Amino acid sequence: MSASDDVLRVAVFGAAGFVGGELLRLLLQHPRVGDVCAVSRSQAGKAWSATHAFARNLDAAPVFVAPDDPAFERADVVFAALGHGESQRSVAALVADDPRLLVDLAADFRIRDPDRYVTAYGAHARPELTADFRYALADVVGADLEGEAKLAAPGCFATATLLGLHPFRGLAMRRPPVSFAVTGSSGSGATPRVGTHHPFRATNFHAYSLEQHRHEAEIGDQLGQWGAAFADCRLLTHSGPFVRGIHATLHFAPAEPVTDPQALLEKAYAGSAFVRVLPEPPELRAVTGTNFAHLHATQQHAGEIVVTVVIDNLVKGAAGQAVQAMNLALGWPETDGLQQLGLAAC
Amino acid sequence: MSASDDVLRVAVFGAAGFVGGELLRLLLQHPRVGDVCAVSRSQAGKAWSATHAFARNLDAAPVFVAPDDPAFERADVVFAALGHGESQRSVAALVADDPRLLVDLAADFRIRDPDRYVTAYGAHARPELTADFRYALADVVGADLEGEAKLAAPGCFATATLLGLHPFRGLAMRRPPVSFAVTGSSGSGATPRVGTHHPFRATNFHAYSLEQHRHEAEIGDQLGQWGAAFADCRLLTHSGPFVRGIHATLHFAPAEPVTDPQALLEKAYAGSAFVRVLPEPPELRAVTGTNFAHLHATQQHAGEIVVTVVIDNLVKGAAGQAVQAMNLALGWPETDGLQQLGLAAC
Amino acid sequence: MSASDDVLRVAVFGAAGFVGGELLRLLLQHPRVGDVCAVSRSQAGKAWSATHAFARNLDAAPVFVAPDDPAFERADVVFAALGHGESQRSVAALVADDPRLLVDLAADFRIRDPDRYVTAYGAHARPELTADFRYALADVVGADLEGEAKLAAPGCFATATLLGLHPFRGLAMRRPPVSFAVTGSSGSGATPRVGTHHPFRATNFHAYSLEQHRHEAEIGDQLGQWGAAFADCRLLTHSGPFVRGIHATLHFAPAEPVTDPQALLEKAYAGSAFVRVLPEPPELRAVTGTNFAHLHATQQHAGEIVVTVVIDNLVKGAAGQAVQAMNLALGWPETDGLQQLGLAAC
Amino acid sequence: MSASDDVLRVAVFGAAGFVGGELLRLLLQHPRVGDVCAVSRSQAGKAWSATHAFARNLDAAPVFVAPDDPAFERADVVFAALGHGESQRSVAALVADDPRLLVDLAADFRIRDPDRYVTAYGAHARPELTADFRYALADVVGADLEGEAKLAAPGCFATATLLGLHPFRGLAMRRPPVSFAVTGSSGSGATPRVGTHHPFRATNFHAYSLEQHRHEAEIGDQLGQWGAAFADCRLLTHSGPFVRGIHATLHFAPAEPVTDPQALLEKAYAGSAFVRVLPEPPELRAVTGTNFAHLHATQQHAGEIVVTVVIDNLVKGAAGQAVQAMNLALGWPETDGLQQLGLAAC
Repeated sequence: MSASDDVLRVAVFGAAGFVGGELLRLLLQHPRVGDVCAVSRSQAGKAWSATHAFARNLDAAPVFVAPDDPAFERADVVFAALGHGESQRSVAALVADDPRLLVDLAADFRIRDPDRYVTAYGAHARPELTADFRYALADVVGADLEGEAKLAAPGCFATATLLGLHPFRGLAMRRPPVSFAVTGSSGSGATPRVGTHHPFRATNFHAYSLEQHRHEAEIGDQLGQWGAAFADCRLLTHSGPFVRGIHATLHFAPAEPVTDPQALLEKAYAGSAFVRVLPEPPELRAVTGTNFAHLHATQQHAGEIVVTVVIDNLVKGAAGQAVQAMNLALGWPETDGLQQLGLAAC
Repeated sequence: MSASDDVLRVAVFGAAGFVGGELLRLLLQHPRVGDVCAVSRSQAGKAWSATHAFARNLDAAPVFVAPDDPAFERADVVFAALGHGESQRSVAALVADDPRLLVDLAADFRIRDPDRYVTAYGAHARPELTADFRYALADVVGADLEGEAKLAAPGCFATATLLGLHPFRGLAMRRPPVSFAVTGSSGSGATPRVGTHHPFRATNFHAYSLEQHRHEAEIGDQLGQWGAAFADCRLLTHSGPFVRGIHATLHFAPAEPVTDPQALLEKAYAGSAFVRVLPEPPELRAVTGTNFAHLHATQQHAGEIVVTVVIDNLVKGAAGQAVQAMNLALGWPETDGLQQLGLAAC
Repeated sequence: MSASDDVLRVAVFGAAGFVGGELLRLLLQHPRVGDVCAVSRSQAGKAWSATHAFARNLDAAPVFVAPDDPAFERADVVFAALGHGESQRSVAALVADDPRLLVDLAADFRIRDPDRYVTAYGAHARPELTADFRYALADVVGADLEGEAKLAAPGCFATATLLGLHPFRGLAMRRPPVSFAVTGSSGSGATPRVGTHHPFRATNFHAYSLEQHRHEAEIGDQLGQWGAAFADCRLLTHSGPFVRGIHATLHFAPAEPVTDPQALLEKAYAGSAFVRVLPEPPELRAVTGTNFAHLHATQQHAGEIVVTVVIDNLVKGAAGQAVQAMNLALGWPETDGLQQLGLAAC
Repeated sequence: MSASDDVLRVAVFGAAGFVGGELLRLLLQHPRVGDVCAVSRSQAGKAWSATHAFARNLDAAPVFVAPDDPAFERADVVFAALGHGESQRSVAALVADDPRLLVDLAADFRIRDPDRYVTAYGAHARPELTADFRYALADVVGADLEGEAKLAAPGCFATATLLGLHPFRGLAMRRPPVSFAVTGSSGSGATPRVGTHHPFRATNFHAYSLEQHRHEAEIGDQLGQWGAAFADCRLLTHSGPFVRGIHATLHFAPAEPVTDPQALLEKAYAGSAFVRVLPEPPELRAVTGTNFAHLHATQQHAGEIVVTVVIDNLVKGAAGQAVQAMNLALGWPETDGLQQLGLAAC
């Protein structure tokens, strides 16, 4: 899992999707990555620029390669940005016998409890592999990721919600917290669908999957891993008329009142490279295109806490966090390649 | 309060704002309204079309008049779309001695409990007048509004939340319901501000006023008026990157489990002219520009109910509901002038 | 083509598309239309509301019918909102032997010159039928449409451009006018595509079909029909990040200078029901959802004229103009069912 | 104008505006800039983060300083992002006696011909200073900027239009080219106005300043400086419902036909660091947030050329081009600090 030279060769599976594209973008601009191999079954042989508009800005005109391309064998690190359920079939060979760092961005290896997984996603083809993976919520786990070889990058809703719950994990709750979360259209992927058809999405807002607990399973599993003083969190997911980002509003009531919830946030994220605690409810626009998370907490009524969280779903909620996890796993500076600040006029 | 002829003369105070403009638009297209007088202190003497783009479509080129214009005296019905706190000063004369129908769209006369009002809005100049007003949540109160002379039109957040709570008002709750509500930029009014500056708003999402309970006061007051089995509702307000609409997601847990929450919605709104109960979570785009409300309820976990509600903030949440209330007060068909269905391709 | 009673029965072919949906919406609200039959091959038997969100607001739950449904036989008037090339096959039977009013909204019967048609669209299956159709640019042809039985409703780009050129049709030009035109995403139809995928469209702007002269053919053919003093107009088409509307900017240089181009607009559209001449360049938002067109003309440099035009692509540029043409053909008031003014707060 | 060490100290005047903010963002991420001093008269003493959301991501909490702050004296390079007309008063002292590199981003020193300037902008306070400035259209002038001390950074409309005209500058034209150009809302600056009020802008499109030739003056002056074979270009400016970017469509007819206009683009920009010539009309989304320009040319009709250009108005059209010009003036790699590629999923 170490890079033989001071530049790393990286392969990205599923490079034609949105998360794959963001991985390419970030890795190309990473100071320690020297070679990026984009693997895509559907686009093999075609130019990146046909799929990813940003690639029109490159000097070179790189092309996607097939999974059996020799460039993949040469890679020092592998990112897998495949569909949920696909990773367990496609990347299994990379787990048992392959010492290289693998960062998987699907849901397949995020959930330790097999029952939770099956309830949320159905049967798992290789459940025994899950134990090899470390859940890489980078801003919480931090340097403990160093030396890990198999990482499961968290989902975007789980990242936003868990960052908000982490500072309060030791508190018993009078009832499960509720996370009211909104995602942009890029969360639905690169394939055009009814729900992301511009005439329908541009001015729309709606809830979805209110009874489907996929992301709740991931959050609940992690609360269990943490040994949190509460077992569950309700997640209410919504689609908003913007392209990028997750906004989560958490409402909960600790068994013992908390008088200064901001202080708990500040303590939990003191010295954090990417998590900022703000004096006002955060704005999505401030983190768009970046690996930063902004949080705020307040007491609404006596004993009730409201935490608000914003992240970019594709960076902090996917590709950025995965690169951060790679940095931490390899013992590199956590911020390498991830210091884009966001645009000024938005 | 009756119209001497079969066409009504209507005056709109505060006609240069967004709610005022929507009132003008709806009243101009109302089959029983023959004359619409637009009163605006700031725009008196100027053309409607300088303020309201839709007025460029009119054959005529009407102008705003000042509050002391004789047209106001001749009006059969008065709508007041003034700022909160302004109504109590400006329309007081219309209350005590004036038998004409007055529909006030500010917060001034919505809250019966003086303490709640003062806590939320500060001192009231004429608190004794509030008792003369009927809270006109038109789809709930319905024909009971007939003959009323002074109506307080509900706020947009309160309308969305109360429509969602009404079917469950008889149920004791294990804790106060939480309403996560999102508004479009038109809710902030016609005056440009930082929060509605296009470069900042177009891709943004954020919570606001998390500790400020103005709209909670209105909701709580109404729950009290209803004699609901629960006293309070938490309201968490958010700004979304769309122009029109309110989406509210209500989460609550009745003391006694409810197995079929949709059935309660259907029962409460059977035969309703404007409230539709849908089999899926509603979409904001379906009600934009209309007086309709769409609702859906589901059980998320055993004993926990999620209700989702969409309305157009300026129609059902303001001008449309006010016109509907006028129709009901005058004994006219509830749907007169309010039958626009919304656009097909959005 | 006359309605036997005072309410008309209307059938809409292709009712599941965006133009079809707008026809349904407008016809449902038309005071002289009593029955609307929505024909869709793909959606036959399914509820309108599954396709058209606005239909969730209806009391009833109408369903689409198949083309062989008897309701079609009973219809007094037929609208065809089919794909280009499909009309010439599907509605041919309605032309020769069927005296009913047919309004076709495809390109199939808009272009009188067969060579122009073939160059732009390829071979025509029934070119001999074109002579039966009248090109229904309603705001220009007006009452001359009365008694016509077969109407070809103009395309959206052609409508915007021709409304701008009409007042100047008698002037020789030093070179062909150029129309720089922008359309919203609803112009690409109801089927999700890459170009209307929200993540790609929401912040995008680009030109397309710069060498493809389909709409130029329609415009040029009409200039010929008019006997205009110039034969051609260049059309440069663009996609903008909005849902509805066409904005066209025309730049041209008459052979003889025109000192007051606004006066020519005002003269051409004096007394027009739907065309407004404004003192400033028009704004798209003022006509969204309406059948109105706004125009403005100015002299940029000595001898060069700039005309700007806005319309809603699906109303004035499609369904609204088609209903207006029906009104005119049947000798009804031109504005019946088309008086929606647009929303105030946008 | 040289930096004494290998890190440069830079001051930005007008740092609280959008262009100022983008300068801060780019300079903070520039590998050779060690210190960025943000000067703002109105915000002096306040945190950057109160004005610029991106600054919430910084570790530190920098504050704006007043113009008389000693940090300004220490700066090696000065950028002025002041309002048009303000630079000629405020930065004059930096011109005559101050050898430091000054990059001015206002219109004040862009136009060499005093008559053109006065016609477009009114009287100039210090017209004699203009001769000291070099017009820094970086992708055209390139290494010729090395050693220059006073640079006038081009305007955004002029940049887009001139990049499109440059490859054709040697060709006589049958008439002045026409540039139809569209800008996003960030082009109107950070102060909320009616034209950038979200409810009005979100779905709007309109032309403006059709008779006002400010940007034409800049373009025409530059054509003169170039000794181009044509003297003028018409500019028709429009506002679109997006935040960032300029799209320009140029239509012109050379006196001698050009059969392969793409070849001229490719020749003119061979080896360019930031200009890409694409096989299809470019899309705005591909350059958002970057310093890249994308161009395409095609022949529409025999002898008529259409060139399309996209840039980010605040980067390539302002701050990015200014930093690029600094790099070139100082003899540094042109791309330093400017290699952001844009986001993948948009």
